Amino acid sequence: MTPILPVDPPARLLMGPGPVNADPRVLRALATPLVGQYDPWMTDTMTETMGLYRDVFATDNEWTMLVDGTSRAGIEAALVSLIEPGDSVVVPVFGRFGHLLVEIAGRCGAEVHAVDAEWGTAVPASKIREVVETVKPKVLASVHGDTATTIAQPLAELGEIAAANGALFYVDATATLGGNPFDMDAWGIDVATAGLQKCLSGPPGSAPISLSDKAVDVINGRRSIEAGLRGDGDTESTRRIASNYFDLGMIMDYWGPKRLNHHTEATSMLYAARECARVILEEGRQNVIDRHKTAGDAMAAGLAAMGLPLYGDQEHKMANVVAVEIPEEVEGEAIRASMLADFGIEIGTSFGPLAGRVWRVGTMGVNARRDAVLQTLAALEQVLRIGGFRKLDPGAGVDAAFAIYQERA
Amino acid sequence: MTPILPVDPPARLLMGPGPVNADPRVLRALATPLVGQYDPWMTDTMTETMGLYRDVFATDNEWTMLVDGTSRAGIEAALVSLIEPGDSVVVPVFGRFGHLLVEIAGRCGAEVHAVDAEWGTAVPASKIREVVETVKPKVLASVHGDTATTIAQPLAELGEIAAANGALFYVDATATLGGNPFDMDAWGIDVATAGLQKCLSGPPGSAPISLSDKAVDVINGRRSIEAGLRGDGDTESTRRIASNYFDLGMIMDYWGPKRLNHHTEATSMLYAARECARVILEEGRQNVIDRHKTAGDAMAAGLAAMGLPLYGDQEHKMANVVAVEIPEEVEGEAIRASMLADFGIEIGTSFGPLAGRVWRVGTMGVNARRDAVLQTLAALEQVLRIGGFRKLDPGAGVDAAFAIYQERA
Repeated sequence: MTPILPVDPPARLLMGPGPVNADPRVLRALATPLVGQYDPWMTDTMTETMGLYRDVFATDNEWTMLVDGTSRAGIEAALVSLIEPGDSVVVPVFGRFGHLLVEIAGRCGAEVHAVDAEWGTAVPASKIREVVETVKPKVLASVHGDTATTIAQPLAELGEIAAANGALFYVDATATLGGNPFDMDAWGIDVATAGLQKCLSGPPGSAPISLSDKAVDVINGRRSIEAGLRGDGDTESTRRIASNYFDLGMIMDYWGPKRLNHHTEATSMLYAARECARVILEEGRQNVIDRHKTAGDAMAAGLAAMGLPLYGDQEHKMANVVAVEIPEEVEGEAIRASMLADFGIEIGTSFGPLAGRVWRVGTMGVNARRDAVLQTLAALEQVLRIGGFRKLDPGAGVDAAFAIYQERA
Repeated sequence: MTPILPVDPPARLLMGPGPVNADPRVLRALATPLVGQYDPWMTDTMTETMGLYRDVFATDNEWTMLVDGTSRAGIEAALVSLIEPGDSVVVPVFGRFGHLLVEIAGRCGAEVHAVDAEWGTAVPASKIREVVETVKPKVLASVHGDTATTIAQPLAELGEIAAANGALFYVDATATLGGNPFDMDAWGIDVATAGLQKCLSGPPGSAPISLSDKAVDVINGRRSIEAGLRGDGDTESTRRIASNYFDLGMIMDYWGPKRLNHHTEATSMLYAARECARVILEEGRQNVIDRHKTAGDAMAAGLAAMGLPLYGDQEHKMANVVAVEIPEEVEGEAIRASMLADFGIEIGTSFGPLAGRVWRVGTMGVNARRDAVLQTLAALEQVLRIGGFRKLDPGAGVDAAFAIYQERA
């Protein structure tokens, strides 16, 4: 048998739509020794991490914690805990991840009303308002930034629409949190979920979540009464949350003072999540958002100056990822492959109607840095040149990015 | 604001029922830099990890992979993917985790038939056979080792019972895999799930899973046909798996050659899971099982010699954890607290009827070592002496453990 060697990945600069490189401090935190799940130090660390994520989400919500799974686990925990079969849910769809919310809400038994935008644009608030006023849904569920199209849906008005119509407002902030303005309480968001692998500079596998009091009341109303305790009139079976693992009522009882055993908290991922938050708060939440804005603008300016048309409504673009149209005279996948194999730099393509039509270039988390932006532009210029892109203006990409950094210095 | 410091846990020797200390090699693997999810190196590493877990589970099953979440996520993925509302499920219950299978199967809409054992014993196979023959369930679902009682249910006969009655056989091997005999294919197990935090010496947060061809057929029969593709006769909505995150059909499409995007694989936990398997296979699967047997026997002999009666049917005890009755003249929780605070050693109590009645002492994973056994016995002797345990025979515990190691050397 060939000996199996320790894990030894190639060096990569991850400038795609995420996951991106983890901050080295987060990698070190991951290697920290474990303690028992009810060790006083462990429960203190869980409580401390709840506080750190309140600051990351910009919320006062007591119930701010982690779901043990990837960002999709956070989405499903939120939706399955809020939605009962037959409930109405309205979902603005402006990219692939809107479709995902539709799909998950559907599996929860919801009657889903999608409100579509043309790809590359946000959904007009007026269109959402109309549907919400007609449907009067239990939940208005929206992605914040959809990396598939790089568009960020404005949320403040949606919070107002949800509140005015008695709906809970759920937001999937996986791709935006930490790198774009996000004000949970000010925007009237009842439940927000995220992941670590985008602007938070961590590995995928832990999903920060925050619940407003209104959301907690809904979840508490669905707490399961055990078989032996049920009265004749209880219609328990229809209201019980369909998932045990994602039952946010039980997850609150585990993270809260009751400390009722549910799952066994994923200790190493807790360490990682804590460090992601610590690193952001140490730099300053607003400073990190500003750094993403500058890096994203520099990357977009550089790509445009290089002769690559920017895709989508730039007024509603996420700060941390930009899409550009792939020139007809080059082979998109060959360019990406050379970027990865020859220069060690990953950039992305997209899904569905945009597969093979655009490249997506991210500047997020620890990679929202000037040197990472400049390396990417310099390498892409060489690969495009070799690949036969005729419009290329040598040096223009790096110059444009430099200019953004100089003007913001 | 007080500065938030990097994570810095106290030194702990984790000799409870798990999680236990991670192998330092697994901690180092966790700190490995990330790559993109479709990087050829990443997909190769996923495929390689599937092969390693085939050897850990002792199976030829193609579909052997990881569910991104704690061991409970693996259980729910298995049950929700197999069970349709109204299906019958038989569950032997011989401790807390049997109750958990009942609870999760219930949330999946199953009609659940529990077959109870007295706590501290395994369920007689004849009793399970009777219920399975009467009910003819779709799934026979059993915990292998229930850490709540330290009992291991013999599985080979259950596999035969399931097969003879056309039932799928699901086993939760979280607490036993790697440290106890476990032969998935030979025992006729269709689906097995586990976690890393017990005998595999890893952190909680990743759930290895393996599916027989029979199980895969059932899951493939429930694949979701998208709305636009459905014919008039399709009764898709009742057969679709209720969870997106735990839809094993979609998880297979992500791990398999199709590489269809589902979640974003939790890279760091993948590295950890790979290293857990690598470390076991390097030592040799049977050698690791033998090491657990010796350490468990030494710990049990030591505790008994110290004057602590062993709890439960010793003929059906898991190798990696032992329970002892707490003497009446000492305060159980004060002893545990002193072990932790003064000696840095964690031991456990139990749940439900056994809470405060027994201590549970584990010897698993990297801690199934002679020095860890002897340290624990030596420390416990001192804490029991100070705590006023009158029957204590000084030195007897360590002598008995030494004797086991000498006789097996």
